[in-house]
Amino acid sequence: MKELRVGIAGLGRLGRVHAANLAHKIPGAVLTAACVPGADSQAYARQELGLEKVYGDFREMVADPELDAVAIVSPSGEHCWQIEAALDAGKHVFSEKPLGVTMEQCLQAEAAVARHPELVCMLGFMRRYDKSYAYAKEKIAAGAIGTPYLVKSTGIDPEAVVEGAIRYSGTSGGIFLDSAIHDMDLMRWFLGSEAAEVYAMGCTFKHPAFQDAGDDETGVAVYKFKNGAMGMVHVGRTAPYGYHIETEIVGTEGTIRISAVPEKNRAMVYDVNGARTECVESFPERFAEAYLTEMEEFVRCVREGRKPDTGVADGIYATRVGYATTEAWKTGKIVKI
Amino acid sequence: MKELRVGIAGLGRLGRVHAANLAHKIPGAVLTAACVPGADSQAYARQELGLEKVYGDFREMVADPELDAVAIVSPSGEHCWQIEAALDAGKHVFSEKPLGVTMEQCLQAEAAVARHPELVCMLGFMRRYDKSYAYAKEKIAAGAIGTPYLVKSTGIDPEAVVEGAIRYSGTSGGIFLDSAIHDMDLMRWFLGSEAAEVYAMGCTFKHPAFQDAGDDETGVAVYKFKNGAMGMVHVGRTAPYGYHIETEIVGTEGTIRISAVPEKNRAMVYDVNGARTECVESFPERFAEAYLTEMEEFVRCVREGRKPDTGVADGIYATRVGYATTEAWKTGKIVKI
Amino acid sequence: MKELRVGIAGLGRLGRVHAANLAHKIPGAVLTAACVPGADSQAYARQELGLEKVYGDFREMVADPELDAVAIVSPSGEHCWQIEAALDAGKHVFSEKPLGVTMEQCLQAEAAVARHPELVCMLGFMRRYDKSYAYAKEKIAAGAIGTPYLVKSTGIDPEAVVEGAIRYSGTSGGIFLDSAIHDMDLMRWFLGSEAAEVYAMGCTFKHPAFQDAGDDETGVAVYKFKNGAMGMVHVGRTAPYGYHIETEIVGTEGTIRISAVPEKNRAMVYDVNGARTECVESFPERFAEAYLTEMEEFVRCVREGRKPDTGVADGIYATRVGYATTEAWKTGKIVKI
Amino acid sequence: MKELRVGIAGLGRLGRVHAANLAHKIPGAVLTAACVPGADSQAYARQELGLEKVYGDFREMVADPELDAVAIVSPSGEHCWQIEAALDAGKHVFSEKPLGVTMEQCLQAEAAVARHPELVCMLGFMRRYDKSYAYAKEKIAAGAIGTPYLVKSTGIDPEAVVEGAIRYSGTSGGIFLDSAIHDMDLMRWFLGSEAAEVYAMGCTFKHPAFQDAGDDETGVAVYKFKNGAMGMVHVGRTAPYGYHIETEIVGTEGTIRISAVPEKNRAMVYDVNGARTECVESFPERFAEAYLTEMEEFVRCVREGRKPDTGVADGIYATRVGYATTEAWKTGKIVKI
Repeated sequence: MKELRVGIAGLGRLGRVHAANLAHKIPGAVLTAACVPGADSQAYARQELGLEKVYGDFREMVADPELDAVAIVSPSGEHCWQIEAALDAGKHVFSEKPLGVTMEQCLQAEAAVARHPELVCMLGFMRRYDKSYAYAKEKIAAGAIGTPYLVKSTGIDPEAVVEGAIRYSGTSGGIFLDSAIHDMDLMRWFLGSEAAEVYAMGCTFKHPAFQDAGDDETGVAVYKFKNGAMGMVHVGRTAPYGYHIETEIVGTEGTIRISAVPEKNRAMVYDVNGARTECVESFPERFAEAYLTEMEEFVRCVREGRKPDTGVADGIYATRVGYATTEAWKTGKIVKI
Repeated sequence: MKELRVGIAGLGRLGRVHAANLAHKIPGAVLTAACVPGADSQAYARQELGLEKVYGDFREMVADPELDAVAIVSPSGEHCWQIEAALDAGKHVFSEKPLGVTMEQCLQAEAAVARHPELVCMLGFMRRYDKSYAYAKEKIAAGAIGTPYLVKSTGIDPEAVVEGAIRYSGTSGGIFLDSAIHDMDLMRWFLGSEAAEVYAMGCTFKHPAFQDAGDDETGVAVYKFKNGAMGMVHVGRTAPYGYHIETEIVGTEGTIRISAVPEKNRAMVYDVNGARTECVESFPERFAEAYLTEMEEFVRCVREGRKPDTGVADGIYATRVGYATTEAWKTGKIVKI
Repeated sequence: MKELRVGIAGLGRLGRVHAANLAHKIPGAVLTAACVPGADSQAYARQELGLEKVYGDFREMVADPELDAVAIVSPSGEHCWQIEAALDAGKHVFSEKPLGVTMEQCLQAEAAVARHPELVCMLGFMRRYDKSYAYAKEKIAAGAIGTPYLVKSTGIDPEAVVEGAIRYSGTSGGIFLDSAIHDMDLMRWFLGSEAAEVYAMGCTFKHPAFQDAGDDETGVAVYKFKNGAMGMVHVGRTAPYGYHIETEIVGTEGTIRISAVPEKNRAMVYDVNGARTECVESFPERFAEAYLTEMEEFVRCVREGRKPDTGVADGIYATRVGYATTEAWKTGKIVKI
Repeated sequence: MKELRVGIAGLGRLGRVHAANLAHKIPGAVLTAACVPGADSQAYARQELGLEKVYGDFREMVADPELDAVAIVSPSGEHCWQIEAALDAGKHVFSEKPLGVTMEQCLQAEAAVARHPELVCMLGFMRRYDKSYAYAKEKIAAGAIGTPYLVKSTGIDPEAVVEGAIRYSGTSGGIFLDSAIHDMDLMRWFLGSEAAEVYAMGCTFKHPAFQDAGDDETGVAVYKFKNGAMGMVHVGRTAPYGYHIETEIVGTEGTIRISAVPEKNRAMVYDVNGARTECVESFPERFAEAYLTEMEEFVRCVREGRKPDTGVADGIYATRVGYATTEAWKTGKIVKI
């Protein structure tokens, strides 16, 4: 079976992670092209990634008949039309989450996917591919905790990068759309049911700039699911200790909790501060292996003619719940989904 | 300074803990009387506690001029009138939580306290006296986590005693009044602000008997506080691993989390199941030391003429929020407090 | 059954712990006398403990016909003759470890115990009464780890009190006699066998004063037991994080490890240093509950006419192994025991 | 810079890990050849790895002028002559540990390395490349724990694969040479000093077959280093919970401990057994990332003309200490190194 030739759109922080993986770490794949707007990124593509085919225009890249697939890691607002353009050009698609920033975009992407049942379109819900999350899913499937009925999900970005979050706070769609998409996805994945109702609120105690931009520093939300199960979400942006992603699934026979302490590694330091572990600093550090695993899965899906577990429908669901949560937060009302 | 002569009302599970502490472990106190209805409990008082003064009638006990104070560990519905009767008889009062089961009762007790500024009336919010909670409070006062803005509080009773919970589910006032009173108190204590608004929901996945009785197995609630801070509560009754009380206080400069794993002791067992710790089985086990510490504090307060930190106002607050939470849960609406 | 009237010898740091427990916390016991040399300690006994009978001379105290028992918490060199004198005066004895500082003393105390089979003589190996150690013992007895064949034991005093250790380093008998007596006892207790052979070494990297006094800052030793099992001991005096007592018992079917992290309480702080727990600072803090439990057991033994699990034979064994370890350390040779 | 063409010798369990990494995961390297004896392995090389050049004879493989380097993952007794043959054929060498099984072999390999200063010869002490160990090393270099003076190192293979260990126990050189080579290396690496003296012992409580073969199930050893520091090693083969590698470095200002619990991942399960984490099952699982990292470092060293940190001298040291430990264990005497 021949190697999958992949082009990448976007070489930001996460784009470079995916590009390096595609270039060096994914059996059966070869990175052959990149589409990036700026001269700097184009130079990076040529020199660091050794690519000959470097584009400024996405449609031009997907017109390349030698290309088999694209990895879309562009800004969120570009995902949907690029998915559509790539599929219509006959390319398999891996796209970063979120699927899109409006429901209209998302539905258009869904239609494109429906038009091309012969192509793979996978969404980058990489947490599902993290070995701890995958282990939890397997355990639950095997009955380890009985019937899951409550998911508690926490995601706090590090204070160290709060300036960036403040900068985008006017345009990011607000904290829930910006930070809680994975939690929307995971709750459904673990509970096997869809959210029916949401109530949400937020607060800002450290950086008033968030509120100035109509956003909040921290958000909490609770969900009632169609099957009666419940969800609790806490998202934030100011963890002084690093990047904190924690998920707990409570079931009738047990509970699984992932990462109560976001340990950087297996070392514990005992010193005048007590006994401590340093924490992971960023999403690329925390999910380095998951980014690789999901891309391996994408490549295997294409080569084996399989559909991945995470597709456009998952993106539409997560976005819809993200909007409902945002509405609940903005209006102070309970919102039906 | 002479020893405080204390009478106890109620010798149930927790009553016996307090009685044993008062009899043997509290410097400056001596247990001299008990008031219990049944013959069995009266025999226990005489034989196990060695008491000569054993009453069936509370008013009779507090009429004893030799008695200085009473510890009220009777059923929740009796607390308020007993507080009033004891104060009016000139006795200092330690009462278990909750203060009462209706707001009317609570306000009557409050009036009695106001009538007797010369007497101590302390409520048994023992979690505040647990060394981990007290440590967190001190750390926060010292600025260790900046300004606290979110408390996440979890309390799950063990599946092992679920039959008792089912039995009382029709009369307990429901899961929030029954199980979340401490969480109401702790959130205010840590945040330094009062709850302004609550939204709540519940579910029952294991024991339908709860729903048959109009109750729920598990409840979650979120709170907005007057100062803008937030609270999340998760209470349940079916932990297969033991008794799980966990509290997290999130602040602008750090977070303190108490008891992510409710370890029974310091031992870890490595065996075919992996590496594991057993968990505490019950509230008397988890808070044994706190029950002692709070009673020591009560005795010291009386002897030193001080007022304790936990009084009737705390009980009124917690009960009011408990009722509001119950209303939110029952109606599915956001409730102002 | 009447209350046990106990006199205490010694009111140093640990003596005051025992005195307070006997005075206030032990059902069935009452502290009635103290024997201490200095005026300050005598004043403490009178004022803080409220004792009327305060002695400077031990033999005088044990001559009191109203006294039932003594708790010996005097300097190590005094233990043996005081045990003998108390037993010969017909008093039950609780003595702190070590039994004595020379084997001759120890054997003399053993003879006194043999002369008085009607009396209880208990040694203060409080670690056995710590709830985590007691839990490990029970689990092992129940077969949880199969046959135990290796004990790894660690005891590190806090750097915070190193000045005291340096001050006594010339007279303490060296690090193993000073710090490893509990480890000697625990290894035998858990393995069910006695040490046959020892090899030991030490080093000093921080405070040369230890070596100037012929002592060492840190010592390690390995033991071969009669049944073929093995032991590893690491003792030190310079833990910057607190007081670290850790014991691991390795068996054919599992391992139990007690206190890999000497957590102060159940709270974890997440801040710029990562996620951390503060550590216990001292032996009175770490073993507060064990000191109480062992004294309760002593009092129960006397009142119930039972012999305690920890007696003079345990003290003799531990001292003998302590001397052998010291010889191995000093000579650099393997020493048979 | 052109890609490094690498041939692999050996396709056993670890050989396949390295082969897969070289084939798919190492930037700048390409796997072009394999040398394996059996028909099955040769078929694996052709079909699974897609290699055209598959040899039965090592010298034949290294005679290939298109080959730049070899990765030696053959049985331990073959390492040294293959290193020599490869270097003499002008190939860079990565060899698995141990360097050799006799000191003579090791010295011959050392001479070959000395003859070829233009070539890279790296030994697979992968633990140094594990992110937790590398983190500890960096922290220590930065002064985080002051001067390290004691290393406690534990390595226990899983009971699940004990049959294999029993099968090789007559020919493996005994538990210390078989299992403690990494510990020898790590102690020196962390302490910055070489072992001067060793005392060791072993025992067998579960599988008498080890002792029948002149081996032991479990071994412990203590080391005195030239700079006065100390080392403690515990190696075993019967962990019921998985593969347990733990290392603690004690310094004058703090301690770093790596992997007190060999957690499989970040998930904790709370169920009727308490709160537990499953453990890693094998060395390929525990050190998957380290095997990749060390090979990346090898390839970078060759391409950048650098020498790696782990070379033949490290192998000679570890083997020498392994033999001294074995002698101590067999003779029951203290052995100078």
